[in-house]
Amino acid sequence: MNLDYTKLDGLVPAVVQDASSGRVLLVGFMNDEAFRKTRESGFVTFYSRSRNKLWMKGESSGHRLVVKEIFTDCDVDTVLVKAESQGPGVCHEGYESCFFRRLDGENWVVSEARTYDPKAIYGSTK
Amino acid sequence: MNLDYTKLDGLVPAVVQDASSGRVLLVGFMNDEAFRKTRESGFVTFYSRSRNKLWMKGESSGHRLVVKEIFTDCDVDTVLVKAESQGPGVCHEGYESCFFRRLDGENWVVSEARTYDPKAIYGSTK
Repeated sequence: MNLDYTKLDGLVPAVVQDASSGRVLLVGFMNDEAFRKTRESGFVTFYSRSRNKLWMKGESSGHRLVVKEIFTDCDVDTVLVKAESQGPGVCHEGYESCFFRRLDGENWVVSEARTYDPKAIYGSTK
Repeated sequence: MNLDYTKLDGLVPAVVQDASSGRVLLVGFMNDEAFRKTRESGFVTFYSRSRNKLWMKGESSGHRLVVKEIFTDCDVDTVLVKAESQGPGVCHEGYESCFFRRLDGENWVVSEARTYDPKAIYGSTK
């Protein structure tokens, strides 16, 4: 069950995909402790590089991600978590997915509507 | 159209998702040149950390990935590429997706059959 954390200074990228729709919701990083916590708690838990600590997604918003299945890749250096969101969106900017900007020619354009008001949850949009 | 490459020493993680099925096929890394090459050529191109050079996925196998749409996330530090595979599988071990191992209790178990014989394409399984 060991993952290869050596390529990224103790981390592996973790892709979270909606278990029902297949939509890619966000990508974070896990260290070994975050990966164990994800398994043990059943909620997706990342390692925050900026805050330098474990970060259970949704711990402040309540929009947690319930783990359904976990996969790893051929090199065992990335994980894919199929999860169910407990909220209307995972993105702190108010969208269902963090990948709400699509490349259109030379520009990133917002390609969908917000699913909730981030100010009501986080107090500000950023 | 700029991405934030500062968090990962000049790279961003790039998730490739099958444009039709929504399956996550693989995760690689792109530097700015790989990202430009991906856009200009229309084929998914990574930066190989082990070989230290650009790597168009499928350049040796012929199993290239045709770009359909490109998204970025709220922090502009990750890309999601929806693509169409030109081969029976993207994984050099013979599977449709590199994420062919599922966590079952304490063990990673192969959760699907190979879609092609990697020896016929690459000469060996690794």
